[in-house]
Amino acid sequence: MKQVKVFLTEDEIPKQWYNIQADLPDPLQPPIHPATGEPIGPDALAPVFPMNLIEQEVSQERWINIPDEVMEKYLLWRPTPLYRAYELEKALGTPARIYYKNEGVSPPGSHKPNTAVAQAYYNKAFGIKRMTTETGAGQWGSALSFATCLFGLECKVYMVRISYDQKPYRRLMMNCWNANCIASPSKNTNAGRKILEENPDSPGSLGIAISEAIEDAVTSKDTRYSLGSVLNHVLMHQTIIGLEAKKQLEKLGEKKVDVVCGCAGGGSNFSGLAFPFVLDKINGAEITIVPSEPTSCPTMTRAPFSYDFGDTAETTPLLPMYTLGHKFIPPPIHAGGLRYHGIAPLISQCIVEGLIEPRAYNQLGAYEAAVLWARTEGFISAPETSHAICTVIEEAKKAKEEGKEKVILLNWSGHGLMDLTGYDAYFSGKLVDYPLPEEEMRQSLEAIEGLPKPKKMKGGKEI
Amino acid sequence: MKQVKVFLTEDEIPKQWYNIQADLPDPLQPPIHPATGEPIGPDALAPVFPMNLIEQEVSQERWINIPDEVMEKYLLWRPTPLYRAYELEKALGTPARIYYKNEGVSPPGSHKPNTAVAQAYYNKAFGIKRMTTETGAGQWGSALSFATCLFGLECKVYMVRISYDQKPYRRLMMNCWNANCIASPSKNTNAGRKILEENPDSPGSLGIAISEAIEDAVTSKDTRYSLGSVLNHVLMHQTIIGLEAKKQLEKLGEKKVDVVCGCAGGGSNFSGLAFPFVLDKINGAEITIVPSEPTSCPTMTRAPFSYDFGDTAETTPLLPMYTLGHKFIPPPIHAGGLRYHGIAPLISQCIVEGLIEPRAYNQLGAYEAAVLWARTEGFISAPETSHAICTVIEEAKKAKEEGKEKVILLNWSGHGLMDLTGYDAYFSGKLVDYPLPEEEMRQSLEAIEGLPKPKKMKGGKEI
Repeated sequence: MKQVKVFLTEDEIPKQWYNIQADLPDPLQPPIHPATGEPIGPDALAPVFPMNLIEQEVSQERWINIPDEVMEKYLLWRPTPLYRAYELEKALGTPARIYYKNEGVSPPGSHKPNTAVAQAYYNKAFGIKRMTTETGAGQWGSALSFATCLFGLECKVYMVRISYDQKPYRRLMMNCWNANCIASPSKNTNAGRKILEENPDSPGSLGIAISEAIEDAVTSKDTRYSLGSVLNHVLMHQTIIGLEAKKQLEKLGEKKVDVVCGCAGGGSNFSGLAFPFVLDKINGAEITIVPSEPTSCPTMTRAPFSYDFGDTAETTPLLPMYTLGHKFIPPPIHAGGLRYHGIAPLISQCIVEGLIEPRAYNQLGAYEAAVLWARTEGFISAPETSHAICTVIEEAKKAKEEGKEKVILLNWSGHGLMDLTGYDAYFSGKLVDYPLPEEEMRQSLEAIEGLPKPKKMKGGKEI
Repeated sequence: MKQVKVFLTEDEIPKQWYNIQADLPDPLQPPIHPATGEPIGPDALAPVFPMNLIEQEVSQERWINIPDEVMEKYLLWRPTPLYRAYELEKALGTPARIYYKNEGVSPPGSHKPNTAVAQAYYNKAFGIKRMTTETGAGQWGSALSFATCLFGLECKVYMVRISYDQKPYRRLMMNCWNANCIASPSKNTNAGRKILEENPDSPGSLGIAISEAIEDAVTSKDTRYSLGSVLNHVLMHQTIIGLEAKKQLEKLGEKKVDVVCGCAGGGSNFSGLAFPFVLDKINGAEITIVPSEPTSCPTMTRAPFSYDFGDTAETTPLLPMYTLGHKFIPPPIHAGGLRYHGIAPLISQCIVEGLIEPRAYNQLGAYEAAVLWARTEGFISAPETSHAICTVIEEAKKAKEEGKEKVILLNWSGHGLMDLTGYDAYFSGKLVDYPLPEEEMRQSLEAIEGLPKPKKMKGGKEI
């Protein structure tokens, strides 16, 4: 009998997160204050995040210990299994060996609790009683609800209106974990009311929801805000995925990985799998590392590298990232987690350095890939994840054409059981593609025209 | 760090199913023909099931080998983890050690594929091209869709109308696996049309849906019917759960289990965990083994032991079982999988022999238990499963009162991510209990008044 999956025992789980900041050839450009243009210090973030997480955000330590209290909760679903996708390989007739990390086994069904649990712990340790956040597809909101529930904190989730309407079960999940979830833009905040005045039917966006959640946090007692992606510490908490995968591949005797892929909205699940392999690449290994995104929100593949706000209401510091501009309202694709206007600064820097190679896929193709996946591997994928499956299939077909063995590693970041309306649209032929028109992108980029441009540093030189 | 869960490696997975028929103190009373009252032979079932499964149905062999082709598919999610429910124990302040098998990790999210995959394999091996079935909550229909998809068979699912309406995502899951799912009663069959003429707004029932699926199977080419519970071979396929659990408990050094529990609609998930422990009890071990059911459909706790039809349209042979009568229309509780009018003959015989002790719970109490579970153990339970969690909590509290250590083992049969409307009703205070009124039960039992009564055999004597 062929071995389909590898588990680690609980005592084999990695005890530290990997911080890629220690190894980037060129350091991140600092976040800067929008008014002064000067780098901001940790204190400026104190009303938004607890200081212990701010310290992680700027840390240059390569390895950060995972606290026992976090590990205890991780063990509710970690280590996650590493699968060999034999059935998909067979269907594609490829000589490639395809492996995937199944992050769908967590109670909320995605990779998101890897950082949610860590953030809830650090907030509690800092004396915080209540957390606020935004959510797109709902993966992040349910993960933070789950995590705050485990640590006995209150939780308020601002959910992008279009997803709130498309995915009613998500709110119910959050309620199961005792959280309060409302649609954004809401009348709860100045930021929300302002948007609703301009457009009462606004479908919302992650940028708007972030503005609301931050405003709520900084104006409420013992409350801090939590972001499910984009920031350095968030991406770092996810690296347990890649670190586990390395141990599991080793157990299988796989010495070399050729392709690593994951979908990227803000960038956390991709980074979680990929960063430990980016380190290998920095150290000379030949690996193709691919973050994938939708053509409707082509942050990494078409947008410029610029300083930009993290939110629509311009309340955050400016971050150096590939961005479509903070006023960008993405088309209503079902992959709600891939509709953010920017991409994590750490991922942006990896793109600048040529360490990773972003690709974009259409929505219809992504669903086609997901249906093939369900009918071979059995699991129903989140619509975000299906964009990374496109890369897997592309690379597996290339291996077939070239007649070459190849090891492909995917982060199967979550199941799609809460997102079946997208499959409904696909099956009934109502699904459409929304490749972003040049003119719309141009207009959207006007929002960042006056903002500073970060240096593009590669190999110690500006390019 | 305390160990939260135990995995088996893939080569430690049990290689055989356990057939309790080999060990029952008194053999099952045979199925009989409704017209003649005589025991029916295997041939009478041939239009409905493939002969290889009929042979399993009547086999008296203790151990049946799991074919490699089935094992290969099992490995997509098996072995499933055995968890220690530390967080629930802490919340209850109990000295009991609570363990649960997490069957929710399968692609369809429940224990059901354990038999679905086996049945699809045996049908394919017999040359069958298409399978029909019924589904209540949708767990079974999606499991068979998944299994037939893996083996390249067509699949048609008749889904009980009320669940079809309450749980629209279930149909979409089945579509993802290439199956055709329609609401029952339907206009597709004589059985369905007859019910709709009498009551166009019929909410349906498992009994009706079974009639439709059987009619479709026996009147279509290369088609057989598949049942997700009740029958001997179905329960046997599930025993891999209990056999895995025994190995896992052994790894933890647990030598004795005191309480085993699972919910029981037709009885398959309960039997799957419990039968290997029933064998221990037959051999003298002291174990309390509890199948749990809703008070709204109190088959095991209040109904008589009688011969009865498996379906509403009276197309099946008569089976010896505890039954509320085959015309029973259960109240619209959310635990759709627990709304069947009868209970498996093997479970019925175990009740007669005093080997297991059924208990019934109200719907509100079941949701209360499920919410406590979600807020401690993290996972959101299927509404069926929550009935078994009631037993766990009951027994854990008893252990606390008595100040006694105790090992409790639960089959956590599936997640409730497809069933969140029930939680919505619970949170909004709209959920009600439906304990079955005496008068309604009396009326329902009229349907079996003229039917033969099986002997109640215990310890070789009629009781």
